[in-house]
Amino acid sequence: MTKERQYTAAIIVIGDEILSGRTQDTNSNYISKELENIGIEVTECRIIQDKKLEIIKAINELRKKNDHVFTTGGIGPTHDDVTVESISEALGVKIEKNHEAYRILKGHYKNIDLSFNKVRQRMARIPKGAKLIKNKISAAPGFKIENVFVFAGIPVVMRAMFSESLQFITEGMRIHSSTLSIDSVEGEIANMLEETLYIVRDLKIGSYPYFNSKKDFGVNIVIKSYNTESVIYAEQKIIESLDKLNISYEINNKT
Amino acid sequence: MTKERQYTAAIIVIGDEILSGRTQDTNSNYISKELENIGIEVTECRIIQDKKLEIIKAINELRKKNDHVFTTGGIGPTHDDVTVESISEALGVKIEKNHEAYRILKGHYKNIDLSFNKVRQRMARIPKGAKLIKNKISAAPGFKIENVFVFAGIPVVMRAMFSESLQFITEGMRIHSSTLSIDSVEGEIANMLEETLYIVRDLKIGSYPYFNSKKDFGVNIVIKSYNTESVIYAEQKIIESLDKLNISYEINNKT
Repeated sequence: MTKERQYTAAIIVIGDEILSGRTQDTNSNYISKELENIGIEVTECRIIQDKKLEIIKAINELRKKNDHVFTTGGIGPTHDDVTVESISEALGVKIEKNHEAYRILKGHYKNIDLSFNKVRQRMARIPKGAKLIKNKISAAPGFKIENVFVFAGIPVVMRAMFSESLQFITEGMRIHSSTLSIDSVEGEIANMLEETLYIVRDLKIGSYPYFNSKKDFGVNIVIKSYNTESVIYAEQKIIESLDKLNISYEINNKT
Repeated sequence: MTKERQYTAAIIVIGDEILSGRTQDTNSNYISKELENIGIEVTECRIIQDKKLEIIKAINELRKKNDHVFTTGGIGPTHDDVTVESISEALGVKIEKNHEAYRILKGHYKNIDLSFNKVRQRMARIPKGAKLIKNKISAAPGFKIENVFVFAGIPVVMRAMFSESLQFITEGMRIHSSTLSIDSVEGEIANMLEETLYIVRDLKIGSYPYFNSKKDFGVNIVIKSYNTESVIYAEQKIIESLDKLNISYEINNKT
């Protein structure tokens, strides 16, 4: 099968604890990296509150603009878990007791000798027509409905669900990249980068300066394209220019 | 002065390197925490691409809905730094050479013996009417225009700019909170939390389960209110319920 399409995705991180700064989100970074590896470009990430209207708005905006939407958080059994209801409202589908989810949860709580109480039964309520996304860490499943993937917020569970969801995702055209780390500052290379972009068109160049309290500094130049040859050609051009400018560099990453 | 207003803010993180997963964003977490400390609630955070139309759209949507908007990234001198232009378009103001910024930059490059070339002069171009936000780490200033604060993306510089921007921000009503870490799971406490919310109304309760690959698990219950007494009362109620349920807990944080 040729992988000739470019795919896009958006991520919605749901949770007051992220917005208050209490918890550092790492889920979106994980999903972004994994998606890039299978040729899916993340175009936007939103971190929003545990509020139904906010979730509905974000879902409906982003699912129209992207091939896939991934949400994390808010699928547990407590009052602040409003993701499932919000998604079903956003998509205009009913929530129902999902028999497979019910069976999984019932078995799980029997195994660990906890009562499968009403509160826990809530986690078997899934929008109608959704496909379950199981995970080996916790029993409560995520799900996929239309182009929306709904995951838990706990990183270890989210990652297990992400792996499981890959069966529903078609890989896209691979983005190739090369990273040059240079011992200089942006003001010395800006013109040269623009010239490179002028010569090689099907390319993106990112310029990421860094410096820290230890006074280390430099710039990472990231060259990206769907076309390997463009990456190689641009890298060559940039290296020639760096040599002329007497700037030392290291090739750090190539994919 | 009484601090009787509640304020809100949104954060816009601008940068392809965050969306590709190459860089883990930590700026939004830093800003969120600092704002919570001065009584400003972050209602949303968007991570978006280095694209003018995306930036303009996010700015205009979020500045209308919030008292403040903070942006990070995209104010350097290279081709992929499009934040300044985008903000001026979003706000319908012209960009001009800012004489103060020009003077600061000129002095800086003279000091470190680098030429103040055309590319670097670009960083003195600031939307008309903006107030500069200087920083002691790098010379290039951020700025504030209307209710939008524009910061650099490099964390150490962003933090310096954030401190500097505090002079423009009125502190809001303080949110008080208390965190109880309990040795149990959400399914055991969901009802009790809902009952507490029913008794104490001016309150938010967050329930954050955790577990990791080392099989540590538990739930952090975060109680929040603008009213200290409500926090204290709810904490008391929850502790009574935990005692009845035979669940052990620790009070972890109180502000």
